Amino acid sequence: MSKPRYTHLVQNLPSSTPFVGPETQERETGIKFDARIGANENGFGPSPKAVQAMQAAAAESWMYGDPESYDLRKAIAEAMGVQMANVVVGEGIDGLLGYLTRLLIEPGDTVVSSAGAYPTFNYHVAGFGGVVETVPYRDDHEDLQALIAKAKETDAKLIYFANPDNPMGTWHNGDDIAAQLEHIPDGCLLILDEAYVELAPDGTAAQYPVEHPKVIRMRTLSKGYGLAGARVGYALGAAELIKSFDKIRNHFGMNRASQAAALAALGDQDWLELTRERVAKARQRIADIAAQNGMTAIPSATNFVALDTGRDAAFAKAILEGLANKGVFIRMPFVAPQNRCIRVSCGPDLELDILAEKLPEVLKDLD
Amino acid sequence: MSKPRYTHLVQNLPSSTPFVGPETQERETGIKFDARIGANENGFGPSPKAVQAMQAAAAESWMYGDPESYDLRKAIAEAMGVQMANVVVGEGIDGLLGYLTRLLIEPGDTVVSSAGAYPTFNYHVAGFGGVVETVPYRDDHEDLQALIAKAKETDAKLIYFANPDNPMGTWHNGDDIAAQLEHIPDGCLLILDEAYVELAPDGTAAQYPVEHPKVIRMRTLSKGYGLAGARVGYALGAAELIKSFDKIRNHFGMNRASQAAALAALGDQDWLELTRERVAKARQRIADIAAQNGMTAIPSATNFVALDTGRDAAFAKAILEGLANKGVFIRMPFVAPQNRCIRVSCGPDLELDILAEKLPEVLKDLD
Repeated sequence: MSKPRYTHLVQNLPSSTPFVGPETQERETGIKFDARIGANENGFGPSPKAVQAMQAAAAESWMYGDPESYDLRKAIAEAMGVQMANVVVGEGIDGLLGYLTRLLIEPGDTVVSSAGAYPTFNYHVAGFGGVVETVPYRDDHEDLQALIAKAKETDAKLIYFANPDNPMGTWHNGDDIAAQLEHIPDGCLLILDEAYVELAPDGTAAQYPVEHPKVIRMRTLSKGYGLAGARVGYALGAAELIKSFDKIRNHFGMNRASQAAALAALGDQDWLELTRERVAKARQRIADIAAQNGMTAIPSATNFVALDTGRDAAFAKAILEGLANKGVFIRMPFVAPQNRCIRVSCGPDLELDILAEKLPEVLKDLD
Repeated sequence: MSKPRYTHLVQNLPSSTPFVGPETQERETGIKFDARIGANENGFGPSPKAVQAMQAAAAESWMYGDPESYDLRKAIAEAMGVQMANVVVGEGIDGLLGYLTRLLIEPGDTVVSSAGAYPTFNYHVAGFGGVVETVPYRDDHEDLQALIAKAKETDAKLIYFANPDNPMGTWHNGDDIAAQLEHIPDGCLLILDEAYVELAPDGTAAQYPVEHPKVIRMRTLSKGYGLAGARVGYALGAAELIKSFDKIRNHFGMNRASQAAALAALGDQDWLELTRERVAKARQRIADIAAQNGMTAIPSATNFVALDTGRDAAFAKAILEGLANKGVFIRMPFVAPQNRCIRVSCGPDLELDILAEKLPEVLKDLD
């Protein structure tokens, strides 16, 4: 029987997904999640102005989105103090990571990441035939110095570094990051993933010239702005690098209503401030729940908290499964030693109430 | 100065876009389009039920979309009489064409298309290092027999064939297509792009078993269903081929509100029927306007009409520019001899009134 002739690369790729979605889990178990606090979604929701903008744009969905995302890029450029030529908008950071990987990675090329960092980046790298070299976390923090050293050692084309980090929620001061940039080897590009930076303490975002040839900064509307389902991310970098995305990106790939929603969300900084306050309270609440259950919250600069169970991955996994069976969706780090933890996303009190009620029950069952 | 190390492929790619968006033209000329009838968008708009679904989902945009698009795939599978394993949902046909090209094409591989057919497919092929071999249109129709012959001759991995065609709007009977499938060479896959098929006469969609190993059918919510800005397309094919998309697709790439809108749109077949009637009337109206201006409408099974100017590409291009300067956005085929035509999308009377008013003025200026 004739079959399509897949590329050599694709023939050897597994059929996989970086994450199992909560809907998939619900379908498999038949149990609906009452508390959806596992995917670092922002349960406090997007700005009402963003919702209104999306609703107003709904009836205009017969039109394609502007392939240049002009208005959105203009607003981002102004807010960030850069030129529009330094900004590319894409289908979430996931989409932008895919494009960037495609631009740089061909079979056999090396990238560097932290062991247990964002798996979607690794998925993209594998998808283009690259090899991911890892360095361990240091005290639950990503270790930029070690990443750079490994990049030198392996002649890596890309370094992936998230600040704040996912899944641990830890962070570095922006100045410490900026001080490391000069050590990045020639021919290597640092991906500075700041997906959660709007929720981090002031000073977390590194300051450096946007034309720096060795860094690309990635941001998203998915986390602080609460628009994960709208798929809007952006990257900031040297104009030449940003322009290269035009060689391969899906020019008409942006959702038109999402463009409008993102523009409105960025314009509502009051809502972001309110979200920051709500997230800070939720982080404390999660830490309190953890303490009441014999766990330790790792300080977080994100909208989630990694809770150190004090035991091992099998125990953490058992908690995940126990909570899932009681309608609570959370996740956990994939790799040791971080996988001694469970990871809980910030959400409204109603959902954290459910966690507070169900977690002791699960732990009791595990005794 | 250090630069990122692009792949060998990317270094040789031009920075390009398959189409210039109307917003870009407006920004360049400073003239707003009063009639947006150039991108084959569906100006009759999506079903009000789809709009309502999108609006209702807007506030839930803090959640990622279901990475399996389960509900939507289920509805598509039921409507098409296939299994869910035969359906993949993606970010428009553009997104799916990109994924499929990535699955099959590596540098030096050959694909076959018609000279002047959908440029976004060619963009994707070039983006993965493939070579596009073309055959001419025959009497303004894509020529499947010639495409298959060329595929044999060039050992092509993919054939691109749209039915109905864009940019000419012509079509073949589905039975004639089905009869050709047995002639597709082993190791070659036919992309049957049916983006416009909902607007075509009954019998246009080819009937064949969905597990046929040599065809993948692509459909979209962008045209008949009026949701171009929502970026929802789907492909139907053998389960093994469909599963291969999971190796590389952006699993969390679908917009959540778009998933809801698409589901509602597919459920409102009454609206689609109304759209078919409106499109048919608009096609006639465009043909009448053409006749009044000494042009000939080429019979169309789509929501646009190619108008034969009876002259050459320079003349057609002058009409495009003249109309653009008067606030009317239309497009034209890229390649001879089709580029003797201009292409007008169906739209509400208000926009066709503007065309009817401005076209004679433009032609007079060109005299």
